[in-house]
Amino acid sequence: MKPVVSERGRRMPSSPIRKLMPLAEAARRRGVRVYPLNIGQPDLETPPAMRRHLAEAPAVFAYSPSAGTPECLATLQEYYRRIGIALSTDDIIATTGGSEAVLFAMMAGAGEGDDVLLVEPFYTNYQAFATMAGLRLVALPTRAEDGFHLPPREAWERALTSRTRMVLLCNPNNPTGTVYTAEELQVAADFCRDRGLFLVADEVYRELVFDGRKHVSALSLAGFEENVVVVDSLSKRYSACGIRLGCLVTRNRDLYGACFRMAQGRLSPPGLAQLVALGASELGPDYVLGLVAEYQARRDILYEALRDIPGVLMRKPEGAFYFVARLPIEDAEDFAAWMLSDFSLDGATVLVSPAPGFYATPGLGRNEVRIAYVLRKEHLETAVRVLARGLAAYREARGMGPVATATATTSGL
Amino acid sequence: MKPVVSERGRRMPSSPIRKLMPLAEAARRRGVRVYPLNIGQPDLETPPAMRRHLAEAPAVFAYSPSAGTPECLATLQEYYRRIGIALSTDDIIATTGGSEAVLFAMMAGAGEGDDVLLVEPFYTNYQAFATMAGLRLVALPTRAEDGFHLPPREAWERALTSRTRMVLLCNPNNPTGTVYTAEELQVAADFCRDRGLFLVADEVYRELVFDGRKHVSALSLAGFEENVVVVDSLSKRYSACGIRLGCLVTRNRDLYGACFRMAQGRLSPPGLAQLVALGASELGPDYVLGLVAEYQARRDILYEALRDIPGVLMRKPEGAFYFVARLPIEDAEDFAAWMLSDFSLDGATVLVSPAPGFYATPGLGRNEVRIAYVLRKEHLETAVRVLARGLAAYREARGMGPVATATATTSGL
Repeated sequence: MKPVVSERGRRMPSSPIRKLMPLAEAARRRGVRVYPLNIGQPDLETPPAMRRHLAEAPAVFAYSPSAGTPECLATLQEYYRRIGIALSTDDIIATTGGSEAVLFAMMAGAGEGDDVLLVEPFYTNYQAFATMAGLRLVALPTRAEDGFHLPPREAWERALTSRTRMVLLCNPNNPTGTVYTAEELQVAADFCRDRGLFLVADEVYRELVFDGRKHVSALSLAGFEENVVVVDSLSKRYSACGIRLGCLVTRNRDLYGACFRMAQGRLSPPGLAQLVALGASELGPDYVLGLVAEYQARRDILYEALRDIPGVLMRKPEGAFYFVARLPIEDAEDFAAWMLSDFSLDGATVLVSPAPGFYATPGLGRNEVRIAYVLRKEHLETAVRVLARGLAAYREARGMGPVATATATTSGL
Repeated sequence: MKPVVSERGRRMPSSPIRKLMPLAEAARRRGVRVYPLNIGQPDLETPPAMRRHLAEAPAVFAYSPSAGTPECLATLQEYYRRIGIALSTDDIIATTGGSEAVLFAMMAGAGEGDDVLLVEPFYTNYQAFATMAGLRLVALPTRAEDGFHLPPREAWERALTSRTRMVLLCNPNNPTGTVYTAEELQVAADFCRDRGLFLVADEVYRELVFDGRKHVSALSLAGFEENVVVVDSLSKRYSACGIRLGCLVTRNRDLYGACFRMAQGRLSPPGLAQLVALGASELGPDYVLGLVAEYQARRDILYEALRDIPGVLMRKPEGAFYFVARLPIEDAEDFAAWMLSDFSLDGATVLVSPAPGFYATPGLGRNEVRIAYVLRKEHLETAVRVLARGLAAYREARGMGPVATATATTSGL
């Protein structure tokens, strides 16, 4: 008798961009250069001050304490102190990337069959962790026209069920690039406190806020100590995605205890990554300023170029290094595949993420794509030129004709 | 309203040795040397051939593919080829330690409320992963008198319920050091095939078999390709516990697919660890021979010394680097704590793991301890001398008197 995979195993979602990978590979084999605008893998160097610490690796690569080495926890504590957040090292658990922190928070904050409230579009892998934890994601829509900002209190209340246990926010937001204001964050936090919910804030893009904006961490809200759980990662901040180091931060002792016991179960977070982390304290304030300037310049290039394309609808992204744009097409999945298999300009094409994978509600995001700007400026300029010409050619190939002026005027909203 | 931690969060087990750590710290502060016989952290060096690969780390510490880099997968495939197991790289998922492989196997192989059959005593962290996955561990007892070998087919059948989805074996066994014979493994595998169960074999101690024994991997059983899932780790084999790299191996495509999608959710296994792994192919056959000789010599020292202690019951351990011994005491938790707080010999004491944490059945293992031999021989000799004197002193302190001869004769069974 053949054993059968569990229901949750069968329901585990595939990565929404995975089906495009064979097409991208085929394009590369044909000699086409594929500019990846699909993933959040920065091209910037991991800071040498951090890489240098690998030379201190001891002769025995031993387990570290389950919550992280004292040195690693002190480095994280110092990082938060510098951004104005006072923490005890007992509020922090070093995790295997932000991913593990999300899984721990979901597992400890909600039980099988419970609901997690979040806004859509959302980071697609939340669905994977929710499936593992047996949770239902209940998504409140946000709209491109509103810059994907948070809904008012009434919308949160309407979505509340007897099984709601937490609100999950990503701020700055992946995939939309939206940075939540202090006011809208307060609305969500008040809702959580009044309703006895955890507020899980994924702040892995915390530094990446543009045009002089200031990021408001959920940890800085006074009076929400029992509600707030922050998910963090060194991946984006330090261009160190591959080391798999993040952390979970909470002042709620019960939640900390449950997550700590899960951390004990898996013994320790990656040790070499914890060595690399020590270098973060050696980076001066210039490091973050440079990082923000670089990504803001890239955003500007993309935004300026994209809003010139007839029929493209997007607000100026406020942070992170992604945004969601509405394209003058009907089916982003078909368009993304077509760009790889049927189009090239001067030997180049682009790979974009169709947005439906970032929505829980079927049908939403069909004419939207997520674009990541993790390429050097000159490559971005080429990539957006390719995208613009591709859009026009695709509409022609699909018999859609040129974009009507009425649609075009909404561009750059 | 204060948010409440989930039922599974509350039920997450604490590490059973954790409560002893403050006592060990206090002993150290009093100037007492504490020999750790409690954890599986080898003192041997991570092979220089592996550490050396860290120098190849690129300037951008980027995500790797979710199942591991092609180079890392090829290294794992080559490792298995050398031990006589032919695999495709598509049968292997590199994981964050063996821990993640256990969690993936449980999540994909069974659903909330399902049962996992295993023998007790068992590796205590299985309970943590089962709690996260919402599974019930159904434990079949094994006995010190039988060397903790597997029960007959009838015992497996009796334990079967309508919710049984998998059998979980650890071979060589942590904590007992038992190495299963081809025959007893076949019994368990037949049972799994007949009943449509997954056979999850944790083989992280595969090399560590003594006295000329040959380890039989579940992957080498013919006709069980759909049932077998192997959990593996580089931690013990290469003294590299802290890098957190292991793998899950299965030829069952459905199970592979479900685990691969979980791997996609968490993006990638640790990248620096995957670099270190590449060095494994450069180790000649002498490496494993040396490893086995070292641990076998340590086992011999401990075994010879322990069987001379009146009232200690143990069989000669067959593999891994642990064993469970029955002591002439009533409460191993009390004894372990007393050794730290009330006893020292020439300024030294020992830290042992009370065995109850390795049993699911309440009351079992009360007079047993798990001992790990991950210290240099001269330290082991001192440690066992301290343990022997401590046992006698403890019995006196608790009014138990000397061990009766009748008990003493079972020593070294």
